[in-house]
Amino acid sequence: MEPIETHWLEENPGTADILIEGLPGIGHVGKLVAEHMIQELQAKKIAELYSIHFPPQVIIESDGVARLARNEVYLSGGEKRIAFLVGDYQSASPDGHYLLSEAYLDIAERLGVREIYTLGGYGVGHLVSGPRVLSAVNREDLRARVEAAGGEFNRDEPPGGILGASGLLLALSLRRGMDGVCLMGETSGYLVDPRAASSLLAVLSPLLGVEVDKSQLETRAAEMEQVIAKLAESERAGDEEALRYIG
Amino acid sequence: MEPIETHWLEENPGTADILIEGLPGIGHVGKLVAEHMIQELQAKKIAELYSIHFPPQVIIESDGVARLARNEVYLSGGEKRIAFLVGDYQSASPDGHYLLSEAYLDIAERLGVREIYTLGGYGVGHLVSGPRVLSAVNREDLRARVEAAGGEFNRDEPPGGILGASGLLLALSLRRGMDGVCLMGETSGYLVDPRAASSLLAVLSPLLGVEVDKSQLETRAAEMEQVIAKLAESERAGDEEALRYIG
Amino acid sequence: MEPIETHWLEENPGTADILIEGLPGIGHVGKLVAEHMIQELQAKKIAELYSIHFPPQVIIESDGVARLARNEVYLSGGEKRIAFLVGDYQSASPDGHYLLSEAYLDIAERLGVREIYTLGGYGVGHLVSGPRVLSAVNREDLRARVEAAGGEFNRDEPPGGILGASGLLLALSLRRGMDGVCLMGETSGYLVDPRAASSLLAVLSPLLGVEVDKSQLETRAAEMEQVIAKLAESERAGDEEALRYIG
Amino acid sequence: MEPIETHWLEENPGTADILIEGLPGIGHVGKLVAEHMIQELQAKKIAELYSIHFPPQVIIESDGVARLARNEVYLSGGEKRIAFLVGDYQSASPDGHYLLSEAYLDIAERLGVREIYTLGGYGVGHLVSGPRVLSAVNREDLRARVEAAGGEFNRDEPPGGILGASGLLLALSLRRGMDGVCLMGETSGYLVDPRAASSLLAVLSPLLGVEVDKSQLETRAAEMEQVIAKLAESERAGDEEALRYIG
Repeated sequence: MEPIETHWLEENPGTADILIEGLPGIGHVGKLVAEHMIQELQAKKIAELYSIHFPPQVIIESDGVARLARNEVYLSGGEKRIAFLVGDYQSASPDGHYLLSEAYLDIAERLGVREIYTLGGYGVGHLVSGPRVLSAVNREDLRARVEAAGGEFNRDEPPGGILGASGLLLALSLRRGMDGVCLMGETSGYLVDPRAASSLLAVLSPLLGVEVDKSQLETRAAEMEQVIAKLAESERAGDEEALRYIG
Repeated sequence: MEPIETHWLEENPGTADILIEGLPGIGHVGKLVAEHMIQELQAKKIAELYSIHFPPQVIIESDGVARLARNEVYLSGGEKRIAFLVGDYQSASPDGHYLLSEAYLDIAERLGVREIYTLGGYGVGHLVSGPRVLSAVNREDLRARVEAAGGEFNRDEPPGGILGASGLLLALSLRRGMDGVCLMGETSGYLVDPRAASSLLAVLSPLLGVEVDKSQLETRAAEMEQVIAKLAESERAGDEEALRYIG
Repeated sequence: MEPIETHWLEENPGTADILIEGLPGIGHVGKLVAEHMIQELQAKKIAELYSIHFPPQVIIESDGVARLARNEVYLSGGEKRIAFLVGDYQSASPDGHYLLSEAYLDIAERLGVREIYTLGGYGVGHLVSGPRVLSAVNREDLRARVEAAGGEFNRDEPPGGILGASGLLLALSLRRGMDGVCLMGETSGYLVDPRAASSLLAVLSPLLGVEVDKSQLETRAAEMEQVIAKLAESERAGDEEALRYIG
Repeated sequence: MEPIETHWLEENPGTADILIEGLPGIGHVGKLVAEHMIQELQAKKIAELYSIHFPPQVIIESDGVARLARNEVYLSGGEKRIAFLVGDYQSASPDGHYLLSEAYLDIAERLGVREIYTLGGYGVGHLVSGPRVLSAVNREDLRARVEAAGGEFNRDEPPGGILGASGLLLALSLRRGMDGVCLMGETSGYLVDPRAASSLLAVLSPLLGVEVDKSQLETRAAEMEQVIAKLAESERAGDEEALRYIG
């Protein structure tokens, strides 16, 4: 096994203008959005990426078949061809993040990508109603478009910058002449957060000029909020059974 | 010293159809089964593997002689030739797990192995009576055989996938055209668990088509359970002396 | 991306006799001094250094533009040409510190530097009034000059030696025939400390033979001390609101 | 700077039959013995070893001069030529321990060494009066000689094997045809322990056939024991001042 391996599923994978990164991260916000879009736009898997920089762990599929941890690239059909980078893990080591991000950009370059959207969560440590979508860009002139779509720019948010692939792809894509936008859905950071994902998609959708049905994300968000409401009630009532049900 | 060194003890180590991996892990379940089989089948050591990816630690043998940490390959005689991978440690670093697993498969390939069984424990955090044997495979069509032998497949068990060599060998062996089955004996995760090992062996034995006397494992399991029962009794009686005896 | 990349902003960056290192560290004392001097001496950026040994994180500038973590080299004009090494991070791995320090010295060598001052903080775990400036040199005959300027040498201070770039540059510069002086402003270690920075600058300034206006550092130090005084008062009064304001 | 650098101080460093390793470790027992012997036998420094595998830290000498962390090799004069390996640190990474140990053995081989003694502490977690000297060898036939000198061999002591250079040098030296003996002075593990060092020297001395005056180690041990006795008394009396004096 090579340190990083990209396996193309077809010889001619096609082309894409846009790459959307939704790897696992805070509240799985980016992952939820990217996987939702893959489903809604019926995108097709075109590549798999394996690496010794991922955690040394295999995934068991629902049929009991184990496979190596991997990231995957999907390509949507239709008028606007969009590639998606999703997967199981980010790097297990600091320098692996840099090496993997360059490998992701090699894929983007081969597809002809000129614009990258990296999606993530912005953890604030408390439950959020009406989550904002914090933003960053890799060139100042991209900012107005993002703001027009509802993305916010606030000095010192997030305070420590952006960690992992969402950050590195944003910065490293500039070196390859690509535009880069990072959208971060505000979230507690404690739970998988479809509400933040829905808010993020509301900003991403006009930026892409692509309509995406959000009803499924909305349904999951409503379900989640009911569970949280019940949890809060149970806590007040000291009902340990319900707590167990959530945990 | 090379990063990974395989030392063959003979020029012609022979051949094997099957490799059984039983490296240290949760409850040492896989290790107990593999070492028990090595003894019962009078397998002979044919190779040693040394690596800077192991912890920087030496083992002191009972005669006071220190030696490098290592893994070992044994080969059973008899009709069905089975190779066993056992040893002191797994990798000390995430990427080392990948590199070592490939080295194990190089050994398997040289022996002509076509089928790999990786053995481990599945830690559930509480004492288990009648431990199940959770399973995973590297090809869907292997599943029926494993289920017929008593191996269970349950969605989301283990929830995080399989860590270390047991997982990576399962997935990476597919790349070399080998069949792979992982068996995980349900165990508390707190203690070395010969009861889980015995349950695992009850599933493994028919899969291999090899009878293995389990009486020694059963004896150890019974002893262990007596110690645990005494411990529980002492706890109730607040008898600290007995606690010390166990700890 | 190369493991370490130095990007010169001009083909002929000029020359410098002196390099001052003020990377992030304890109390950000070195960083405060170096950044203050860059501003006061109107130094110009001449190089940027990128590395996979930095944390996998991007910085968001005040205009919302993200960029890779980096270190930067500035060059002052005027009679005495001084280069400054400042930036976002030190290495994320132990061996990266060595590799990055050698890269910094490659830059110093190209500029013709013959004297290096590494600046840092010396954390003592409690608030300090009238902070001392602890010192170390890379050749015994440099010591008298440092003491004459107010730098102190005390056996076993700091007790564990000097960590990171401030230490390694001091020792490694000797191999390239450069003089090396490390100045460490005494500080609590809990807060960014402009008072320690001002004390350090009072020692550094005569060593360089360069006058630097300290009023801005003094103002920041006075502000900081007012905040700390209020905090102490609030603690006595049990005023939790004020504590939140500080934290 | 190379990953590992050996700097010989003279072109012809001479030869040695024996290498004694006393790098920092539990209770600094090995370090105390080796440094004591260097002083008593008036050994001369013949080599320095630098490495990016050491912690990224410099040492400040008593004259205020900083130098890179390093290990050092000394050579005693007299009839029996003995080399000593001492220094500031062991490796900062697991694989670095292996790489550095091989570099130490390269040095040993160049000196013609045929016998290695690695010295360390065996931490038992409580104060020890009359510390034993646990032992390990790299060939079974060395054991009788060690036992005759007072070294003990007990199954499962130390229970986890031997960590770091003391263990790896013992095992790796066998590959180069050298005899290897590890001596571990029993110690609490909480304090630098000259008493354990003195006990260890009492075993090492007849093995080497070299008389070494232990009075200095004995004096330090007696002083240490007085301090500990005072500490125990103060604890009983609840005298916090004395506790501060020790800590």
